[in-house]
Amino acid sequence: MVSTRNPLNIGAAARAMANFGFTRLAAVNPYDVAFREARSAVGAAPLLKRATDFTSVAEAVAECRLVVGTTSLGHRELHHPIRRLEYGGRLIRRMLPQAKVALLFGSEKFGLSNDDLSHCHWLMRIPTVDQRLSMNLGQAVALCLYELARDPKAAAARPEKTRAATAGATEQIAVRLVDALHRSGYVNPATAASTEEKIRRLVLRLDIGARDAPVLLGMLRQILWKLGAPGG
Amino acid sequence: MVSTRNPLNIGAAARAMANFGFTRLAAVNPYDVAFREARSAVGAAPLLKRATDFTSVAEAVAECRLVVGTTSLGHRELHHPIRRLEYGGRLIRRMLPQAKVALLFGSEKFGLSNDDLSHCHWLMRIPTVDQRLSMNLGQAVALCLYELARDPKAAAARPEKTRAATAGATEQIAVRLVDALHRSGYVNPATAASTEEKIRRLVLRLDIGARDAPVLLGMLRQILWKLGAPGG
Repeated sequence: MVSTRNPLNIGAAARAMANFGFTRLAAVNPYDVAFREARSAVGAAPLLKRATDFTSVAEAVAECRLVVGTTSLGHRELHHPIRRLEYGGRLIRRMLPQAKVALLFGSEKFGLSNDDLSHCHWLMRIPTVDQRLSMNLGQAVALCLYELARDPKAAAARPEKTRAATAGATEQIAVRLVDALHRSGYVNPATAASTEEKIRRLVLRLDIGARDAPVLLGMLRQILWKLGAPGG
Repeated sequence: MVSTRNPLNIGAAARAMANFGFTRLAAVNPYDVAFREARSAVGAAPLLKRATDFTSVAEAVAECRLVVGTTSLGHRELHHPIRRLEYGGRLIRRMLPQAKVALLFGSEKFGLSNDDLSHCHWLMRIPTVDQRLSMNLGQAVALCLYELARDPKAAAARPEKTRAATAGATEQIAVRLVDALHRSGYVNPATAASTEEKIRRLVLRLDIGARDAPVLLGMLRQILWKLGAPGG
């Protein structure tokens, strides 16, 4: 975090770091040196306490093998390769097991200065729809760390399929629903056969789960009991 | 946003919505009804002004065909299918062109209530490392919207490769560097041949770009000029 103005944003960054398993936070020339007290660091107070202070970017990134700046691609002409977060994140993820990587975030108002940028190997931008509209700093940090922690395989995963009720259980429900609709006068005797077919198809479309079938059956039994004997 | 306590978080949500191109913000029973003035909504004031107020989740989601709750999976036993953000985001993205989808966020302190959750088709969780550690609400909103706006293809994209210098330009640099090192007494005449090979290999490893080659050549020319004639 370089020249951060609002200590709450350093706190928010610390919290996002704790959420996604990152531990080394460095503050380069923060405007408010009391950032360690930020109340926004819910659950990340120890991380914030251990944060290191530096007076220059060069010192802060000295041990890193890759230094990546973040930018909203606003007003400046940039002389670095700029990679979208999705792609840059992949490059960083690949590097992380072997080497330390620094991710630089500039001030809320001005971003990274040209001097800060000159320490970066390349830049990363968050793919927002309107690049003139900057992002909130704490949110930007969270997005970058999420992209690094993101599991591409999880996107392809299939959820455990809900077990469907057996045809027998579904049929019992349909039969009792037909019965209840007969008793309550919903079914016109002249068209009873076609109505019953419609009801059965509707029950099948509901795709009732194995877990829900006995509950629905119980509801219908109770309603049938209350409705009394057919024609009663 | 359901029962949000801090209006700054509604503002931060509005800002993230503007960043990622979402427009319909609904506030259900916010604790602080003055949320429309939130200064955290930098660049999203119009969106915040147009936000709709509701007194129940049912009203807020009435027009949506899919309602997804967000959860940090903390203390509660949940009765819904829970999908990781990467996977849930894909399902929502597939639905969005045809139908309105509601994404529900609960209060900072308690998340969504069981009553709120009963309106959800399924739940989505952000894959944080420690599920007992909740996320900042504004950051959680930003992450979910980023995942929806994210372009999976961008992760696979190759960056425009920097054009490499030609072998000829690289050779000119190597030759002049060798010359400068001779003139400055770096090269031991006894091992000159092997030193020159080492220097050439080093220059090749630098993988100099087409754009940088003339600059480096100019630097070396200037240094050679200053060093004067060989042995001088």
